[in-house]
This record gives sequence, structure tokens and C-alpha cells, in this order.
Amino acid sequence: MMQHIVHSFDQELKFLTTKIVAMIDHSEQMITNALQAMINNDVDLAKKIITDDEYLDQAEREIDDRAITIIAKRQPMADDLREIVGAIRISSDLERVGDMAKNIAKRVGVISMFHQDATFYKQIKELTNLALAQLAQVRDIYAQRNVAQITDVLKRDEEIDTVYTNLFRYLVEVMGKDKEKITLCTHLLFCAKNIERVGDHATNIVEMIHYIVTARHPALDRVRKDLTHQVKN
Amino acid sequence: MMQHIVHSFDQELKFLTTKIVAMIDHSEQMITNALQAMINNDVDLAKKIITDDEYLDQAEREIDDRAITIIAKRQPMADDLREIVGAIRISSDLERVGDMAKNIAKRVGVISMFHQDATFYKQIKELTNLALAQLAQVRDIYAQRNVAQITDVLKRDEEIDTVYTNLFRYLVEVMGKDKEKITLCTHLLFCAKNIERVGDHATNIVEMIHYIVTARHPALDRVRKDLTHQVKN
Repeated sequence: MMQHIVHSFDQELKFLTTKIVAMIDHSEQMITNALQAMINNDVDLAKKIITDDEYLDQAEREIDDRAITIIAKRQPMADDLREIVGAIRISSDLERVGDMAKNIAKRVGVISMFHQDATFYKQIKELTNLALAQLAQVRDIYAQRNVAQITDVLKRDEEIDTVYTNLFRYLVEVMGKDKEKITLCTHLLFCAKNIERVGDHATNIVEMIHYIVTARHPALDRVRKDLTHQVKN
Repeated sequence: MMQHIVHSFDQELKFLTTKIVAMIDHSEQMITNALQAMINNDVDLAKKIITDDEYLDQAEREIDDRAITIIAKRQPMADDLREIVGAIRISSDLERVGDMAKNIAKRVGVISMFHQDATFYKQIKELTNLALAQLAQVRDIYAQRNVAQITDVLKRDEEIDTVYTNLFRYLVEVMGKDKEKITLCTHLLFCAKNIERVGDHATNIVEMIHYIVTARHPALDRVRKDLTHQVKN
């Protein structure tokens, strides 16, 4: 006789939410490692980050498959459907956070061949710590459905954009002063941009949590403060 | 008496697929305009692109809402669910394509203040035309469920990455020769990166179409040929 393990609907939903939290943990660790790999010129850690990314790719696909199975079997009503559709969307943003860490990791080999720049590392640390604070708060908001905290994330995203804009100006200035550093600074610019994008994904995720909880899409006119497109010198 | 317009399930699915095609058309037009705005220093067109992006944001949310309504009301089986979940994912990639165009548009103001660089414009045109070919083929594959054409998209993505890598090298070289052009080239680097990302989104979309049609996720070991992280000089 075939043996079936019958899961309750709640257990199945719990699979999705647990997986999302695991994805947040994983992407947070990848960003932490990306910073360490940059700071310490750690090429081995960079390689590990690239391998670690597979977990998020796999998790995203698993959430798609499970979501479809759950919906087909359980035919859930609107609240639960928002939960499931929300998991699909959020996993997509987390997978992209992993891509950001991976993109930084791929540059570590080149970056490590250049002389370090203390000012850059101080600023990228500040930027990355803000991005990590975003991911930590995203986890709390998701786990506790604490939509009141969403404004913290939106505010911190503005901070991230300000630090990123300063870093962008700084790197362009360095390139102007020392042409030997142009390649390095170009890679560092993309590293910084990747971290700034983590902030955008965090914002997307909390907006999706807002939708899961309230069935309403948050204000569309959220101000984006990345002003580097205006940097003229 | 309340009057209800009763839609068939097929009509409801058709709403989603029609909306996706409209999003492809719209994002294609935005990328076309982004190229024109860059080439012609057309600040007014750039402003239009930024406004046009709202359509894609709105369409993405509309697809979420409709998907949930359709699932709740119709309780579809696995094939149709993949169609619906696929629409959710694809709309997310298309919304990001719009963001790429918008990010370019925001830089037009700064770029237009600098002397034009003919070589860059030749290469960015080539890159953008490849990205536009991707979007056109994505539309065909989606509309006709022609999964056999997916390999074309994957191949063209490798071409895009090669052109992008060459462009990256070129811009870094220009910065090294003329420090007056560093700010310009930095913005142009991000413009090029945005176009290269369009290719990645096209790839994501055709992989999702593959999943919709076959219920299988395509090979995970797809080679990514963006090698700019290895550019040392």
C-alpha cells in the first residue's frame, strides 16, 4: 500500500513562509560575505558566494512549484491566495539580492589586484550595513506581519540612496585624479550599485507584504532618492 | 437589479496574456525611446519615458490582482495555474525592463551636456538593437508558445554580453585617455549595463514560458557570458 503523508493546508502555507525566511537568511549571509570578500580580497570566499547563489535559484523554483500544487489542491480564498502570490513575488526579489552578491563576488578577483582605498571601504561598509539592516527588518516584518514598520524600511532606503550617491561622486573624483584607478573604480561603482539595488528589493518586498496583509498596494508615489543620474562632476 | 457581466474562464486568462503582450509592446517602445533619447540628447523624450514607466508599474499590480481573483473564482488546474503564475513572474521582469529604460532616461540630462562619442553611440545602438530583437522574439514565443525558438534568445543573450563587454572595455579606455570624460563614461557604462540587463530579463521570461508550456524548469547551468567582471584594463 502506498503511504501518503497528508499535510494540512496550514502546514503547506507554512512551507512557503518558512522558505521565504530561509531565503532572507541566505541572501543576508551572501551580502555579508560579499562585503567581507571585498574588504579582505578573499577570492575563496568570493567563489563560495557564487556557489551559494544556487540555493536561491533553486528555492525560487521550488516556491513556484509548491505554490501551484497548493493552489490546485486547496483552492484557497483571497487572503491565502495573496499569501501565496506574495511568496512568488518576494522569492523573485530575494533571488535578485543573491544575484547582486554574486555580481560583487565576480569582481573580487580583479579588485584584489589593486591597491585598497580606505575611504571607499569605509563608505561601502556603511552602505552594506544599511542594506543588511533592511534585510533584517524585512525578515521581522514578514515574520510578524508588522506593517507599521514598513515606513522604517522606506526611510532607510532614502539613506541608502544618499550614501550611494556620495560614494558615486567620490569614485568619479578618484578616477579623475588617478587614471591608474579607473578600472578599479569602475568595478567598485558596480559593487556599490549592487548594494544600492538590495535596498530597492527590500522596498519591493515590504510593499508586497503590505499587499499580503491589507489587500491594498501601497502609495505609488514613493520617492526614489538615488540621485546619481544627476551627478555632473 | 445588479447587472453582472459574466466572463468565461478563457476570457479571464486571455486578459492576462493580452496584458503581458501589451507590457512587452510598451517596454519595447520604452527601450526604443531610451536609445533615441540618448542618441539625440532628447531631454523631452527622456521625460516621457519616465512618465511612461507608470503604465508598467500599474500593469504589474493589475496582473497580481486579476490573478488572485481568477484563481479564487475559478480554482484552475495545474496547466492554467502555470499560465497564471507565469503571468505574475513575466510581468515582474517586464516591469524591470521599464526600470532599465527609465534609468537611462534619467541620465540623458547629464549625458546631453557632454560631447558625443561616435564609437560609443555605434556600439550602444548595436547593443540596443540586440535587446530589442530579444523583446520582439519574446513576444512571438509567448504569443505562439513556440518553445523551439527559446534557444535563439539564449544565443542572442551571449551576443549581447559580448557586445556589452567590448563596450565596457572601450569606455574604460576612453576614461583612461581623457579625464574630462570620466563622468560621462560612468553614466554611459550604466546605460550600457541597463541594456545588457534587458537581455537577462528576456532570458528569464523565455525560461518562464518554457515552464508554462512544459511544466519543467529549463537547464539550470545556462552559461552567462557577461565577462566584464574579468576586465582588468
